[in-house]
Amino acid sequence: MTAKKKFSHLDAKGAASMVDVGQKGVVFRRATARGRLLCAASTIRLLKEQALPKGDVLGVARIAGIQAVKRTADLIPLCHPLPIHQIKIDFKMMSRAIEIDCTVATEAKTGVEMEALTGVAVAALTLYDMCKAVDKGMRISDVRVMEKIKR
Amino acid sequence: MTAKKKFSHLDAKGAASMVDVGQKGVVFRRATARGRLLCAASTIRLLKEQALPKGDVLGVARIAGIQAVKRTADLIPLCHPLPIHQIKIDFKMMSRAIEIDCTVATEAKTGVEMEALTGVAVAALTLYDMCKAVDKGMRISDVRVMEKIKR
Amino acid sequence: MTAKKKFSHLDAKGAASMVDVGQKGVVFRRATARGRLLCAASTIRLLKEQALPKGDVLGVARIAGIQAVKRTADLIPLCHPLPIHQIKIDFKMMSRAIEIDCTVATEAKTGVEMEALTGVAVAALTLYDMCKAVDKGMRISDVRVMEKIKR
Amino acid sequence: MTAKKKFSHLDAKGAASMVDVGQKGVVFRRATARGRLLCAASTIRLLKEQALPKGDVLGVARIAGIQAVKRTADLIPLCHPLPIHQIKIDFKMMSRAIEIDCTVATEAKTGVEMEALTGVAVAALTLYDMCKAVDKGMRISDVRVMEKIKR
Amino acid sequence: MTAKKKFSHLDAKGAASMVDVGQKGVVFRRATARGRLLCAASTIRLLKEQALPKGDVLGVARIAGIQAVKRTADLIPLCHPLPIHQIKIDFKMMSRAIEIDCTVATEAKTGVEMEALTGVAVAALTLYDMCKAVDKGMRISDVRVMEKIKR
Amino acid sequence: MTAKKKFSHLDAKGAASMVDVGQKGVVFRRATARGRLLCAASTIRLLKEQALPKGDVLGVARIAGIQAVKRTADLIPLCHPLPIHQIKIDFKMMSRAIEIDCTVATEAKTGVEMEALTGVAVAALTLYDMCKAVDKGMRISDVRVMEKIKR
Repeated sequence: MTAKKKFSHLDAKGAASMVDVGQKGVVFRRATARGRLLCAASTIRLLKEQALPKGDVLGVARIAGIQAVKRTADLIPLCHPLPIHQIKIDFKMMSRAIEIDCTVATEAKTGVEMEALTGVAVAALTLYDMCKAVDKGMRISDVRVMEKIKR
Repeated sequence: MTAKKKFSHLDAKGAASMVDVGQKGVVFRRATARGRLLCAASTIRLLKEQALPKGDVLGVARIAGIQAVKRTADLIPLCHPLPIHQIKIDFKMMSRAIEIDCTVATEAKTGVEMEALTGVAVAALTLYDMCKAVDKGMRISDVRVMEKIKR
Repeated sequence: MTAKKKFSHLDAKGAASMVDVGQKGVVFRRATARGRLLCAASTIRLLKEQALPKGDVLGVARIAGIQAVKRTADLIPLCHPLPIHQIKIDFKMMSRAIEIDCTVATEAKTGVEMEALTGVAVAALTLYDMCKAVDKGMRISDVRVMEKIKR
Repeated sequence: MTAKKKFSHLDAKGAASMVDVGQKGVVFRRATARGRLLCAASTIRLLKEQALPKGDVLGVARIAGIQAVKRTADLIPLCHPLPIHQIKIDFKMMSRAIEIDCTVATEAKTGVEMEALTGVAVAALTLYDMCKAVDKGMRISDVRVMEKIKR
Repeated sequence: MTAKKKFSHLDAKGAASMVDVGQKGVVFRRATARGRLLCAASTIRLLKEQALPKGDVLGVARIAGIQAVKRTADLIPLCHPLPIHQIKIDFKMMSRAIEIDCTVATEAKTGVEMEALTGVAVAALTLYDMCKAVDKGMRISDVRVMEKIKR
Repeated sequence: MTAKKKFSHLDAKGAASMVDVGQKGVVFRRATARGRLLCAASTIRLLKEQALPKGDVLGVARIAGIQAVKRTADLIPLCHPLPIHQIKIDFKMMSRAIEIDCTVATEAKTGVEMEALTGVAVAALTLYDMCKAVDKGMRISDVRVMEKIKR
């Protein structure tokens, strides 16, 4: 990191502004984010027993994540509103965690990593909400970008 | 954990439903959640140099978090809409992380931990958005409830 | 119907206004609405084969309906924003229709039949969206209030 | 209908996902939906007497429908956010019903029939809300797509 | 004004926070705000000729204002979400202006003057939008609180 | 002004409709709006003393204005949803007023003056909210378009 690095959302006086993307090209962009809801092993067992064969737990979290992706610019003040071409959210049951992947694709002047991260975060919050009656010690962790493509 | 534990948002057939809170009392409730945006040490130094003396970085994240607290029931499908009496978001600059605390208070039939967690998550996403031009390896971690009070 | 009947949302000059509910008591209120998405018999068979054993079709529509109930005052201009204590949405597969029931309960100064109707309408629209690739002749019908209780 | 028909919003495992429209062309698209609020003949007479010469009843429903068209992707979980070029909502007073037409046009990668249907449904719900003080037996019926054009 | 005056939304360090209203009583509160859209005399004449006998101009602005009142806490970051018991918006045609009054009533822990001001501002913006094709020199002025009652 | 001037949002019968912009070209468009929050000289002094060196007052208003720009089509019923390429909000402290400038740029089929005006109005309302504890006589004035460019 050199002295030239700058926060793109701050102007010369330090005031927040939405970055001008007018000169950027409209290209295909895709981003995948991942995160985890850490929980007790017993919570995972209970989910497998009660909620996964026919329960809506993962389905509700998936829809919450998809809806949140579409509202990213409404939640994150300096994000640009973008068209969204595809949203995909997957879950993987681990022994003490639920892993969440969110992939978002578009053709736009700016990337969609904030959209993918927002999808993961809101899906994780929704899982937390549905499991909090049985597990008081959960935490959301390791929410990060896995891949970011532009072509 | 015993066999009697149940997911409160699933009915007998496994379908999602919003829990009936009609019989619960309207009492004072407060929750504090905490989380971290993990980042490079150089990002923290850059923030201290460029963005903290007069820059809007923490201020923007605080407002995004406050607004998100008020939209929790719109983001998390099975959350009840609640009155909100107070919201407070604080940041602490650490050597390789920004720590975020969010406290929410209300008088209501159900608690506000989802509101506090949502405030932390969206404040962290907003910090990520503002720092992503200078740091590609950040992650949001350890978002959890610190305290939950009812009286 | 007598000459004294009046549209409660129009003032003396015919202008729309939100009815003053200040003098009404905060009491328990519950409403159930019902409606149908009429479709081809083959669509019902296809749903039973492909989408119901493990597919998210009904689950997605249920969450869309629940979220819409909470946004009723944002969608219907003269509705009052209300607390919501419970939301329940059920589906029944018929030979040429999916029947949707939505029950909403609250303690408030005004009733929740608009909330229940909105839940049915948006759940039906969501089912339409998910089935429109296989059935071009669906229609949403018979959306009405089944029961309205105040005590 | 053959065995090859598939629900476009379900992936191979039955999970909901937003269909990828990246490969579809941006073309002119227009859709018209229609529906009815069925009511008592006396309600129609009362509307003609009190509310139509100068009252805002149809105007309020029209604005509610227009606003809902713009929020379709926020209401229907798997809908794509779209630009909207034109929205038109018309009402026809019949002897025992108000008929609602909604036409939406855009240039986009996917069609606007869900937008037109949502406009009809929310306009109908708004009419219901404004007439419910004088008529307890109304129902929303026959909400369907009348025309869908792509060129 | 003495040295003891303080900005209620800033904490000891200057950070924004939502004021704690937990200790305040739930009482009847009402506020009226007023403002003007200043325009050309010819615009007022045109409105009287074309738009007021049967046109929707004032009706659209009234609904936009009513909807905005209900979204005040979503627009103004440090406002508390409040129940709303009544909203009334009136227009007065003057020779070179349209005057807008908005009255909002509630029973709540905090007042509704921001709600009333927001209703006036958004009704004025909506009038501006509908008149801008015929008048390029309009301005919104004198938006202020006329009355604020608590009992 | 001649007899040919017409309100673009009214059809032949006076009903509101969203103007068809399908035939208009997608070109660069930029608009700047300006307005003032008029206040007591002592309020300006207090802001300079307590809130400007390190307080969030202007920062909160800036974020509220930026967020409102993105929600313009949701607030103003007949506005088209637009992509937004840049948003900039500046404040100037005067002796008895805070002046607010908002510039919005896009490439779209229709202009962004309503977006710029909405940004000014909501930033002004937010300043009002944060200063109302120390000044009861403020008003929002002179909200108008300063420049509108198309190329």
